[in-house]
Amino acid sequence: MSNTYGQSIRLSIFGESHGKAIGMVLDGVEPGVSIDMDQLEFQMKRRAPGGALATSRKEADQVEFVSGILNGKTCASPICGIIANTNTHSQDYANLAAWMRPSHADYPAYMKYHGFNDIRGGGHFSGRLTTPLVAAGEICNRALCNHMPLQAGSHIVKLGEYEEPLWSDILPDVLASHEKLAIPCQDPDRVASIIEKARMDMDSVGGIVETALWGVPVGLGDPFFDSMESRLSHILFSVPAVKGVMFGAGDGFASMKGSEANDPYYFDNEALVKTRTNHNGGILGGITTGMPIVFRTIIKPTASIGKKQMSVNLQTGQEEEGQIKGRHDPCIVLRAVPVLEAAAKIAVYDAFREGKF
Amino acid sequence: MSNTYGQSIRLSIFGESHGKAIGMVLDGVEPGVSIDMDQLEFQMKRRAPGGALATSRKEADQVEFVSGILNGKTCASPICGIIANTNTHSQDYANLAAWMRPSHADYPAYMKYHGFNDIRGGGHFSGRLTTPLVAAGEICNRALCNHMPLQAGSHIVKLGEYEEPLWSDILPDVLASHEKLAIPCQDPDRVASIIEKARMDMDSVGGIVETALWGVPVGLGDPFFDSMESRLSHILFSVPAVKGVMFGAGDGFASMKGSEANDPYYFDNEALVKTRTNHNGGILGGITTGMPIVFRTIIKPTASIGKKQMSVNLQTGQEEEGQIKGRHDPCIVLRAVPVLEAAAKIAVYDAFREGKF
Amino acid sequence: MSNTYGQSIRLSIFGESHGKAIGMVLDGVEPGVSIDMDQLEFQMKRRAPGGALATSRKEADQVEFVSGILNGKTCASPICGIIANTNTHSQDYANLAAWMRPSHADYPAYMKYHGFNDIRGGGHFSGRLTTPLVAAGEICNRALCNHMPLQAGSHIVKLGEYEEPLWSDILPDVLASHEKLAIPCQDPDRVASIIEKARMDMDSVGGIVETALWGVPVGLGDPFFDSMESRLSHILFSVPAVKGVMFGAGDGFASMKGSEANDPYYFDNEALVKTRTNHNGGILGGITTGMPIVFRTIIKPTASIGKKQMSVNLQTGQEEEGQIKGRHDPCIVLRAVPVLEAAAKIAVYDAFREGKF
Amino acid sequence: MSNTYGQSIRLSIFGESHGKAIGMVLDGVEPGVSIDMDQLEFQMKRRAPGGALATSRKEADQVEFVSGILNGKTCASPICGIIANTNTHSQDYANLAAWMRPSHADYPAYMKYHGFNDIRGGGHFSGRLTTPLVAAGEICNRALCNHMPLQAGSHIVKLGEYEEPLWSDILPDVLASHEKLAIPCQDPDRVASIIEKARMDMDSVGGIVETALWGVPVGLGDPFFDSMESRLSHILFSVPAVKGVMFGAGDGFASMKGSEANDPYYFDNEALVKTRTNHNGGILGGITTGMPIVFRTIIKPTASIGKKQMSVNLQTGQEEEGQIKGRHDPCIVLRAVPVLEAAAKIAVYDAFREGKF
Repeated sequence: MSNTYGQSIRLSIFGESHGKAIGMVLDGVEPGVSIDMDQLEFQMKRRAPGGALATSRKEADQVEFVSGILNGKTCASPICGIIANTNTHSQDYANLAAWMRPSHADYPAYMKYHGFNDIRGGGHFSGRLTTPLVAAGEICNRALCNHMPLQAGSHIVKLGEYEEPLWSDILPDVLASHEKLAIPCQDPDRVASIIEKARMDMDSVGGIVETALWGVPVGLGDPFFDSMESRLSHILFSVPAVKGVMFGAGDGFASMKGSEANDPYYFDNEALVKTRTNHNGGILGGITTGMPIVFRTIIKPTASIGKKQMSVNLQTGQEEEGQIKGRHDPCIVLRAVPVLEAAAKIAVYDAFREGKF
Repeated sequence: MSNTYGQSIRLSIFGESHGKAIGMVLDGVEPGVSIDMDQLEFQMKRRAPGGALATSRKEADQVEFVSGILNGKTCASPICGIIANTNTHSQDYANLAAWMRPSHADYPAYMKYHGFNDIRGGGHFSGRLTTPLVAAGEICNRALCNHMPLQAGSHIVKLGEYEEPLWSDILPDVLASHEKLAIPCQDPDRVASIIEKARMDMDSVGGIVETALWGVPVGLGDPFFDSMESRLSHILFSVPAVKGVMFGAGDGFASMKGSEANDPYYFDNEALVKTRTNHNGGILGGITTGMPIVFRTIIKPTASIGKKQMSVNLQTGQEEEGQIKGRHDPCIVLRAVPVLEAAAKIAVYDAFREGKF
Repeated sequence: MSNTYGQSIRLSIFGESHGKAIGMVLDGVEPGVSIDMDQLEFQMKRRAPGGALATSRKEADQVEFVSGILNGKTCASPICGIIANTNTHSQDYANLAAWMRPSHADYPAYMKYHGFNDIRGGGHFSGRLTTPLVAAGEICNRALCNHMPLQAGSHIVKLGEYEEPLWSDILPDVLASHEKLAIPCQDPDRVASIIEKARMDMDSVGGIVETALWGVPVGLGDPFFDSMESRLSHILFSVPAVKGVMFGAGDGFASMKGSEANDPYYFDNEALVKTRTNHNGGILGGITTGMPIVFRTIIKPTASIGKKQMSVNLQTGQEEEGQIKGRHDPCIVLRAVPVLEAAAKIAVYDAFREGKF
Repeated sequence: MSNTYGQSIRLSIFGESHGKAIGMVLDGVEPGVSIDMDQLEFQMKRRAPGGALATSRKEADQVEFVSGILNGKTCASPICGIIANTNTHSQDYANLAAWMRPSHADYPAYMKYHGFNDIRGGGHFSGRLTTPLVAAGEICNRALCNHMPLQAGSHIVKLGEYEEPLWSDILPDVLASHEKLAIPCQDPDRVASIIEKARMDMDSVGGIVETALWGVPVGLGDPFFDSMESRLSHILFSVPAVKGVMFGAGDGFASMKGSEANDPYYFDNEALVKTRTNHNGGILGGITTGMPIVFRTIIKPTASIGKKQMSVNLQTGQEEEGQIKGRHDPCIVLRAVPVLEAAAKIAVYDAFREGKF
C-alpha cells in the first residue's frame, strides 16, 4: 500500500504478471479529452515485450477500456483500462517458491506478506505492471497537449561501456524523433551489440536514460513537500529496476562552482524569460521554470540472469545454487524508455491539474 | 501545496525565512515516546548556521513545543514545534523584488504566486525551512529506536574536486561517529580548504553525500507507488538544493553486469538472511531487505554567490547585472547532512507506522 | 475526483451504468484472507436488482476478480473486481440528454462536465455503482472477522408512514438474522404494501435505516479530522440518495438533557468496561468505545418516478413536461441496506488497519 | 491520525486545552487574499467562551499568525495561526485521571493511547480545538468571497423543548443577519431560559442547528467518494458533540413521496436554472446545484454536567460516584454555530480550489 499516485488525479494500478489481467484506474482527467487509440497503441508497442533484444514473452497488450471513455472521449468518470495476461508460463516459476532469486523482491516480499503473495512471473512486482503506466501516461499526454505544446524525448547516455553526451546539445525535434527508434541513441548498433553480448553471456546490463519534456509552462510544482522533483522521482522510483534519478546537471553539480552552475536569466526575442543554460533541468525551488524538464534515470541490470547463482532456500535453510528459467530481458533499459516518459507525463499532469491560483 | 508528508504520519511545515517563526506539526507519532531534548538540540546544532564555514546568520534555533508533548513524552496529539526567527536582515532583500536571482526560486515563484510571496531571505523556499525537518526527524528517530536498533551516518563522497570511496567499506560505528564531525569525511582539512576557497572567490561549491541507515527491519515499503525509494526520494527532493538521489550502487549500476550487480543471499551465523554485497542499498522491489539502506544525495552549489551576475529585472524589462548581498553559505553540503538523515528517518518511520500485516 | 476512499486501505470504484463494466480496486487488505465466494454472492444478491419490489433490470452481478486473489486468498496486491453490465436499455435514455430529470445529478453533472458525461442510466452517478461497494465490504468483512467477532444488522425505522422503534431493544442475534430478510423490519407486509402502492401510483417513497455493528473493539478512529463518525459518514454520503446520517440517539439528543443522554460506564461480569445505555452509538470523541456502533441513514425517495414532471430542457431553453421511462425502483431503501452495511465495514476496516499504537 | 482535512487545501490543527497553545496550519490558500482581521476577531468572539450562557472560562482567543500572511495578505505559503492558552485551571482535572467521565472521550482515549494522552480540560478532544477551525473558516471565507457572493447563516431549529420551522421560508438577509445574534432563532428569550434552567439544574441540553450557504456556484463536489455531502459531513463530524448531519429535507424525506420530494427545475428571470423547492439542500449526485446548501447538525447535550454521576474508576476497578468540577457550558449549541459555518466554508473552499475542468 498504496497503489495510488497523484494529488489532483488519482492513478491506481493492479494485477500480477501471471494473473488474469493487469490494469489501471485513472481518475480526475478532464472530460472531453479525445483519446488517440493509434498513438496509445504505438506507445504500448514501444514498451511491449518481443523485440529482437527483449524477452521472448509475446503479449498483444491491448488495453480494453471498460469505463471513463465514451465515443472516444473522456467522460469525467474514472477510466479503467484492462490488459489481459495471455502468454504466461507459470510452470517456469514452480521451483522458485523457496529459492530467493538474487536482487529480486522475492525475499522481502516473502517476509512482508508471509508467503501469500503471487510469485509467478514476479507477481505484482513484475515489470509487466508498467504496461498500465504507459496507457495512463498517454491519456495524460492527450490531456496536457490541449493546454501546452508538450513534447517528450529520451536517449541513452550510458549502457554498459557505451556513453554519449548529455541532452543539452540535442535539438528538441531530434529528441522527439527518438520515439520512433527502438534504440534511442547516437550509435544503436553499438548498444545492440552490448545487449546481444549480455544475452549470449546469460547475463544482463544496466544503463542511464536521459529524458526531457518541452513545453511545460512555468509554475507547476511546490516547495515543501511536493516539489516537481519529488513528484517525478516518486513515480519514477516506482518503476522496477530504477535506482537513481537526477535532474539537470545531476552529479555534475558536485564538481561545479555556483558561478558555473547558476542559469542566467534573459529575455528572448518574444520578451519571454528564459535561462541561457538549463543546469537545473527546468525546476527551481520545486517549481517548473518554463525551460525543459530534464532528468536522468539510472536503471540497474535485469536481476533475472541465466547464469547459475547462489542464494538461500527458505525451505531447506540451505544456500543452494540455482538457475532462473522463465523469460527475461538481457537489458531493460530500452523498454523502460516509454515507461519513464509516461511516468513523467503523469506527474506533470497531476501538477497541472492542481490548477493555477 | 501540499505542505504535508506522510501516509501514516503527517508532517506539515510552515514559515518564511524572515517571518515571525517557522515550525512543524507532526501527527501520528505513538504516545509515550520520550523526547531527548539534549539529542534534539544536538541535531539542531548540526544544521544550525554559524559555523566557521557557514553563513554568518546566527540563530538559537530553539524549538518550542506548544502541543503534543506532556512531561517529556509524546501524548498522541499532533506535535507542534515552533522556532522563532530572531536574526533577520530583511533590508538585504529590499532590492531583490524585481531582479530574479539566478538559480533561485524567485522567478517561478513570482509567476506562480503573482508576486504575493514573501521574498525576504527566500521566504518559504529558504533552506531555513529545513530546521523543523531536523526536529521532526529526531522525534521519529526516538520513536523508531523503541522498535529497532536504528543508526544513521553520512559522509561526503564528493565536494568540488574532493572525492572519497563509497560507503561499503566503512564500518557502521565509524559512520555513526560522523555525527560528531563538522565535516564528515576522511580528509576534513582538504574539504574545509575547498569551501574556504569558494568563499574567498565569492563563489560556492556543490557535493554528494552518502547516507546509511542500519537496523531497519525487512518489510518496509511497497511496490507501486510507494516504494521505499519513492518515499525517501520524495522527501529528500523537498530539501532545497537537492538535485539527485540514487540508491546503493547508484550510477555504478550503469556499467555493471547483472552477475556483478546482483546481491547473493546467505545465512549469517544467526541463520538470518543477509546479502554478501548490498548494491541495491537495502531495498528490493521497493521493500527493505534488512540490509542497510544506503543512498547518495546530490547537492548543487549554493545559488547565492557574492559574484556579480546577469539576470532579468521584471520591472524594468531589462537584463541587469546584480549582486546578492544577504548572508549565505559558500557550501550547503555540510549543513545538509543532518537534514538528509532526518528526512530519511521521517520516511522510515512513516513506512514503519503503516503497520505489519 | 476523488474516486478513492480510505487512509490505510484504498478503495477505488469505476464504471458507468451502461458502460462495459463497473468495478473496484481495493488495496491494503492483509494477505492470506480467505474470500468466501458464497457469502460474497449472498451479499451481492441482497443488493441486486430484480426482486418483486424492485426495478425490472436483471443483472447477474457476478464479480470477476482479475487480481489480488490467489487460490481463494488475498495475496497482498490490489484486488480488482469487475462486474459486467449486461442488461442495458440505453435507448430509454436517448431523450434525456437535454431534459434535466428533477432531483437527479443531470443538471449539475452537465454543468460540471460540459456535457461530456455518460448520461445513460445515470452513468457514473447510478445506484448501480454501489455493487462494487458491496463486494469490497464483504472482503473487508472477512478480514475483520479474523480479528474480532464482527456482526452487522439493519432494520427499517421509517418508510413512508411506517415506523418502528430504534435498535436499542433488539437483540444482536435478531438483528443479524435480518440479513436473510428481503424487508428487514417488524412488519414486512405493511412495508411491502407501501412500496407496492408507490409503484402503482408511479411514484416512490423514502425511508430511514438503522444499522448496528457489534464486536468492534475500543480504540478505532480519531479526534480531528478522522473521527469514526467522519469516516462512516464520508462513505455513507457517497451512496446515492443518502441525505442524512446520525449516530446513536441522533435527533433524539436535541430534546435530551445531559443527565439523560450520558451513557454511564460499568464493569460487566468479565470486568470489561461497558455503558448501560448506548446513546452515543458506540463512539465518543471520534473513537469507538467497544459498544455497538449504531447509526441511522436517511434515504430520499427514488428521484426517478413514472409520473410526468416539469423540468428545463437545456437545448430548447424551455420548461417542458417529461416522463422518465427506463427501469427504476419505487423504493431504494431495501436495496440500500446491504450497501450501508458494506460501507460501514469498509470504514471500520480502514480504521482498524491503521494499526494500534 | 489524521489531523489534516482537505484535498486541495490542507488544514491541520493542533493543541491541547491546557497546553501552551492551540492552532492551525492552512495550506493551499490562494496568494493575495486580504485577511479582514476585524471580521476574524468577530467570528472568534462568536465562538469564544464567556457569554452569560456559557462557560466561565475567559480566553482572549487572539490568533497570532506566524506565517503565510504578509502585509495583511496571504502570501501562498502555509498559514500558521497560534492561539495561546492563558486561562487554564488544570487542577480541576487532577482527580479525573482514573474516573472516566460519562460520554466523554476519556475511556476510549485511555485505551487507545495507553494513558499517555493529556486529560486536562479534555486535552486534544476539547471543544476548544474548534477555535482554530473558526480562524481557518474565516480565511477560506475571504478567499471564497473573491469568487462568489457567499453568505452563510444559521438558526436553531430545536433546543430542548424549543422548536422552530426549517429554513425554507426565511429570507437570506434575515439569516445572514443572525451572525450578529447571540441566540440565532425566533424566540431567543425562550431558548435562553431553557439553557439557564439547565445550568441551574447542573444539567445540560442539546439541539439542532440549521445552516445555509448562498452564492455557491453549480458544480462543486463529486459522485464517489467525495460528494459535497461527504466533504461537509466529514468535517462537521469532527466538531465535538456533533452526532448527526442531514441535508435539505433531511429526515423529512422518509415520509415524502418522490413526487413531493423532487425539486422541479425552472428558468428564472435571468434564464438561470433554479429549482422551485430545495429539498435536496443544494446538492444532487454529490455536486452543488447552485441553490443554497442547507444542512442540519445535531448537537448532543454537553457531556460535562455538574450533577453527580456513576462511572468506573480504572485504578480502583470500582464503580464510583463522581462529580465534574471544571468549567463547562450548559449548552454548546450556541457556540457551535460559528464553528459549523466555518467548517462548511472550509469544505466549500476545498471543493472550489480543486479547479474547474
